[in-house]
Amino acid sequence: MNYCNQCGAGLRSEIPEGDDRLRYVCTSCEWIHYENPRIIVGCLPVWEEEILLCRRSIEPRRGYWTLPCGFMENGERVEDGALRETLEEANARVEIENLHTLYSVVHVNQVYLIFLARLVDLEFFPGYESLETVLFKHDQIPWEEIAFSSVRFCLENYVKDFPNLSPQPIRGSLVRNRSNTPRPGFNSKP
Amino acid sequence: MNYCNQCGAGLRSEIPEGDDRLRYVCTSCEWIHYENPRIIVGCLPVWEEEILLCRRSIEPRRGYWTLPCGFMENGERVEDGALRETLEEANARVEIENLHTLYSVVHVNQVYLIFLARLVDLEFFPGYESLETVLFKHDQIPWEEIAFSSVRFCLENYVKDFPNLSPQPIRGSLVRNRSNTPRPGFNSKP
Repeated sequence: MNYCNQCGAGLRSEIPEGDDRLRYVCTSCEWIHYENPRIIVGCLPVWEEEILLCRRSIEPRRGYWTLPCGFMENGERVEDGALRETLEEANARVEIENLHTLYSVVHVNQVYLIFLARLVDLEFFPGYESLETVLFKHDQIPWEEIAFSSVRFCLENYVKDFPNLSPQPIRGSLVRNRSNTPRPGFNSKP
Repeated sequence: MNYCNQCGAGLRSEIPEGDDRLRYVCTSCEWIHYENPRIIVGCLPVWEEEILLCRRSIEPRRGYWTLPCGFMENGERVEDGALRETLEEANARVEIENLHTLYSVVHVNQVYLIFLARLVDLEFFPGYESLETVLFKHDQIPWEEIAFSSVRFCLENYVKDFPNLSPQPIRGSLVRNRSNTPRPGFNSKP
């Protein structure tokens, strides 16, 4: 971030009064530019004992498998966003059951909210961001080709607990240190 | 938003290729400026049958009562943020039990994540953003002076369910229409 999006002047980095961390502050209009984590909403769509995964047609992780999820948009509720992403990526209609996974990816400032959801029918097909949309039995999940740690965390816990799912959301995180190797996160289940 | 924070040039509003909604796009460097909801993290700190509330010393809603919560910061996990806010606003040390409330405030693009948390001791006292920090019995909660709909929603559900709390987070939302009157949200409990 180099310029003020309010007035176009340059920015300086300083700790504003009453704050305790560095922010970008405009050198002209004094606007404070806060940066905060973004929410990624999605669904874990299930049909009996199968899980719907999407193979990504876009970067990052093109060709790898994911759950339908994406950035939450302004003007929607978390549930709206999860349903929208599931429709966009898999043309799948689902009914949300409950929040299954809450997962922080600290080094990229993302928080995942993934809902367990029942497929309403089997009329799904790939959306623009997907190459394939496939129902997998638990023992057929392509573990070596999962796109993101958040999706892996969600799937691993779901499969491990099935059919005795906890009504509590599973909580987890990925924290990378400066050498870029993962260290253990804040997991609700060790 | 008027100027590109990458190069300082002006912005235009357009739907980028492959997207389906208007974004601010730089007229010079073509940078797309996404805007997304922000996360507010906090705790519902309890001690036996009492709840810790903070009376706000700052706007908005100065003088009204809230749970300790605030904007999640980059570089932290959701749980870290909830603990930090509880320490900042009430100097209170807590242990997180589980996610209690997930609440979308659509017209201001905010998502609340409020954790049920046990106070570790009673050595709490007001932080910079609080005038008072007080433990309330359930029948003494100042319902007429609650700062935010999200906090009211969390407290009402907690008190209503107590002591038979659902292990599921309570989900709710506030959606205002154009005349600025609330309409029913996406509540998990009618």
